[in-house]
Amino acid sequence: MRILGVDPGLRRTGFGVIESDGHRLRYVASGTIVVPAEDDLSGRLKVILDNLRQIVRDTSPEFAAIEKVFVNANPLSTLLLGQARGAALCALADSGLMVHEYTALQIKKSVVGTGRAAKTQVQAMVQHLLALDGSPAADAADALACAICHAHVAPLADRLRDNGDHPAFARRGTRLRGGRLV
Amino acid sequence: MRILGVDPGLRRTGFGVIESDGHRLRYVASGTIVVPAEDDLSGRLKVILDNLRQIVRDTSPEFAAIEKVFVNANPLSTLLLGQARGAALCALADSGLMVHEYTALQIKKSVVGTGRAAKTQVQAMVQHLLALDGSPAADAADALACAICHAHVAPLADRLRDNGDHPAFARRGTRLRGGRLV
Repeated sequence: MRILGVDPGLRRTGFGVIESDGHRLRYVASGTIVVPAEDDLSGRLKVILDNLRQIVRDTSPEFAAIEKVFVNANPLSTLLLGQARGAALCALADSGLMVHEYTALQIKKSVVGTGRAAKTQVQAMVQHLLALDGSPAADAADALACAICHAHVAPLADRLRDNGDHPAFARRGTRLRGGRLV
Repeated sequence: MRILGVDPGLRRTGFGVIESDGHRLRYVASGTIVVPAEDDLSGRLKVILDNLRQIVRDTSPEFAAIEKVFVNANPLSTLLLGQARGAALCALADSGLMVHEYTALQIKKSVVGTGRAAKTQVQAMVQHLLALDGSPAADAADALACAICHAHVAPLADRLRDNGDHPAFARRGTRLRGGRLV
């Protein structure tokens, strides 16, 4: 399966595309959408919308994954991030992709093996798991980590669903929190 | 000129379309997009995106206006509103409309004549100015008030720009705050 991970932000939105055959991961593409600061808000959101839709057309992912955000200490930052995230989710949904959301804890656990991993550890593991020559930019690395998390969690979610052990989980989609179903 | 006002929200997004010939206002359409609560977040944002784009296609506005929001006391509400607002702005920009933002104070001043007006006063004035038989629903009334604000403020902004008195203002677009240029 081919997975697009997105790390939305109003100034920089990272993206990363990987493939997984259930055992091995393969890097496809990654990068950062740099949003012009001088545009008005709707113009900046349209840059995110247009570029993400183009990335979906170019790379044809079957799944999309995005980090579940928690509210920021700064309410204005929360509002700005919310708007950028809204634009990113619109682009993915508008491209016909179902979007899976994962918490930072899930992503760290899935990529590094512990929820207490530092950002640099996550980036190093992304580089290792995808056999990259160099370290991707921070936003792109976060997006790739999110895609890797989906590659790891989605097969587990499918097994749980197939077993019929967790009808509530099957109804709600592929969300895990700290190993527990939510 | 034909103006679409939008009052975004993740549960209900109001919209209102009016026409202005510079002197008189005419009601065209208004309503509320009710977003299904059971959908996942990206699905709900897509409902806002799709419906607003359809409304633009159906009513062919030349301008769009939206209330400038301030951060909410509840950070989670701020995040949710931010995402809904991001979807609404994407829909407008994706439809080729330039979006004008007005503060609640500007809207109240423009519609009622005072920034201290109560919500019910704004709704009554919307009904009066547009010669409506009944009172529109709250979200639709807020959206219509925002469109009326643009009808009142935009010609003034154009005059200021034509006079060349305020080059900084001309550069930044049609924003007024409390009668002063920002």
